[in-house]
This record gives sequence, structure tokens and C-alpha cells, in this order.
Amino acid sequence: MTIKLYCFGESGNAYKAALTLELAGMDWEPTFVDFFNGETRGSDYRTDINPMGEAPVMVEGDVRLTQSGVIQDYVVERTGRLGGGTDQRREILRWILWDNHKLSGQAGMTRFLMNFLPEDKRPAEVIGFMQGRLKAAYEVLDAHLGSRDWIVGDDVTIADLSCCGYLYYPEPFGFDRADWPNIDAWLDRIAALPGWKHPYDLMPRSKPEAG
Amino acid sequence: MTIKLYCFGESGNAYKAALTLELAGMDWEPTFVDFFNGETRGSDYRTDINPMGEAPVMVEGDVRLTQSGVIQDYVVERTGRLGGGTDQRREILRWILWDNHKLSGQAGMTRFLMNFLPEDKRPAEVIGFMQGRLKAAYEVLDAHLGSRDWIVGDDVTIADLSCCGYLYYPEPFGFDRADWPNIDAWLDRIAALPGWKHPYDLMPRSKPEAG
Repeated sequence: MTIKLYCFGESGNAYKAALTLELAGMDWEPTFVDFFNGETRGSDYRTDINPMGEAPVMVEGDVRLTQSGVIQDYVVERTGRLGGGTDQRREILRWILWDNHKLSGQAGMTRFLMNFLPEDKRPAEVIGFMQGRLKAAYEVLDAHLGSRDWIVGDDVTIADLSCCGYLYYPEPFGFDRADWPNIDAWLDRIAALPGWKHPYDLMPRSKPEAG
Repeated sequence: MTIKLYCFGESGNAYKAALTLELAGMDWEPTFVDFFNGETRGSDYRTDINPMGEAPVMVEGDVRLTQSGVIQDYVVERTGRLGGGTDQRREILRWILWDNHKLSGQAGMTRFLMNFLPEDKRPAEVIGFMQGRLKAAYEVLDAHLGSRDWIVGDDVTIADLSCCGYLYYPEPFGFDRADWPNIDAWLDRIAALPGWKHPYDLMPRSKPEAG
């Protein structure tokens, strides 16, 4: 049975799930969510797809999962891939939680405010504040990657595929790979994995005209 | 062996871990982290305690864990309590991830900006923006609790103890229990559990003078 992933190209949270499905070799296909025309805010989506009003959502038969970290956990269980060793499960969860809170959580919002709101509605104080918070997150990740190739253990895991969720996008949000050499090299390592795809090549875009 | 929890009373993230340890009946004690005097930002803390520069941190012998959700997961495994049924593990993780991103992640920051920064340094635009984002999170949680007593299944789990992390504090951050009757009743249910304590009764405070 082909897994359906409700997603759209601009969502780094959806990318985490899509990239995990792809690199684990699962049979999946995207179902486009028209986020920028309000689909996730509508009552149909909240009633039928996800009461949290978020993408991604994964459906396989009777299994319906939301939150990228939960979908990643499911893929690890189904395939035995990308989950590290059994003694690494909790360290992987640590980085996924950190990413959801401090890295992707804030990067996704900042990128949205800077690129997908009309220019006259972009809140400069919020953007500046968020960029400061994000700088602290980049520092933590760059320092961690200074002495290792992957976030946990000796191989790629879902912790890497979570933390990289927003870091390949071309739209500016205050993150410049040149400022963070260890993150930069790690992003190259992920992109060199067999089957890796850029988010805009893996999922349909809402705003293909945007860049 | 007594578990040490690096924490401070004002941290709702630490409260999630402390309340989980307490309600699961574990032998633990707080180790005070002087957050407001910069302890978590110092190089000693980052080198010796947590490179992420965050509280809480739990230490039991050779085991050192950070991220409240990871500590909660450990307590469930050690005690068999507060983890729901085996078929509920992923739904619990879903709500903990949502909480870290959308509820506690944003509530903690907003409360900090509104109460623990000097009055002339409080960024009004950021606070207003965050309160709007938080309102959407309260709506999701209140609707979910409209038809059930606990977030997952028929009993209290670590999902409840995660989502309530910032909701008992007296300092204003735009959350008024009277506006959210289902959240209000659920907070009363948690507070009625044997052994429940308010964060300021469970952990030492950095700023006991503040209210």
C-alpha cells in the first residue's frame, strides 16, 4: 500500500517526514496541502485530516499520524532504518525535541514572516528577535558538529533529518551556511546520501513562482 | 540512589520533569540552577552540565539526560507509570512534540519577556505576536479536552504533564484560565492528583520576590 503524506514543498516540517520516508526506501506519495490558500486553517482539514491544523500528516491504511517526529519514529519502526542503535533512541529524541522547539520551530516561523507575508506586513521587531534566538540555536548545532559527522552516533539518523528541515531552502531567513562551517559540511553530507532530494524536488510547491 | 534534577522554579520545562518524577514516586531532589544570573549561559554549565545551555538536566549515576520530554520518557520506562498503554506511545509523543513547539515553547518565552525582562526592554511587538500564536494553541488544546478528561487515553500521562508545564504560573502572559473552560477543568484534574505540587512548591525559585 502506498503511504500518503499530506504536505507542501515550502514546509520544512513536512520535508523532515518526506525525506525520512524517501531515504528509508518506503513507497509513498505526496498529497498536496494548499497551505497558502488557508487549507490547514479550514474546518474540513481540522475535522478530517488534523485537528492541530498542521502539515505533515501521514496515512497508511488505518494508521494516521501527525507531527514530523512521530512520522519519523514510525518509519524507523517499520523499516529498521535511520534509527541508530537501541542505546541511541533517547539521544535521538533529545535532538528532535530541541529541533522542534529551538531550531525548526523558530526557523520555520522566521522564514514565513520574511518571505511569505506581504512586504508591508512583515513584523521587523519579531523577525529581529527571532533571528537572535536562532543564532543561539545555530551555535549549539555548529559546536556539536565540530567533532562529529552526524548528530547522534556514527551514521545518519532521524535526528539529522529533523534538524536539517529548514536549512536547504533558498529563501532568506538569516541563516547563511558560510557562517557555520560545521553545519555547512554536515548539510553536504546529508545531501550526498543516495536518494537525497531538495524539498522542492520532493514535494509539490504552493508558490512555485516565489523563487 | 537519589536522582538529581538541575532545575529552577520559574522554568516550566523543568516543572514538566519534576512533576513527572514526583507523581511517578521516584526518589529525586532538585539542584538549583541560577538561570537569572546567567548560569546556563556560562561555559562551566555548557561544558559540564548541558551543551544546549538549558534546564532541566537529570542525573542518575552515569545517566545524564536533557530535554524534559526525554526525562519523562525515562521515568516512564523506569517506573511503568504515566506512559499510558503501549498503543498510546506515539499519540503521547505527538502531543509532547506539539507542546514543545506550539504551547510551552511559546508560552515560556512570552512569560519571560513579559515578566523577567526589565520593563523598558520588553518587546511589545514580539509579545503581541506571540500571544496571537499562543491563542491558536490554546484553541487546539481546549477543543481536544472538550470531550475527554486526559490528553491521551483514559488516564493522566506525560502528555498532560508536558502540556500543563507553564499553565499554573501566576505571572501574566496572556493566558487566562477563565477563557478556556476545558483547559481550566483539566488543570484542576491534574492538580487533584495525589502528590501534585505547584511549580513554586516543587523547585527552588530564582526570584522569590517576584510574586
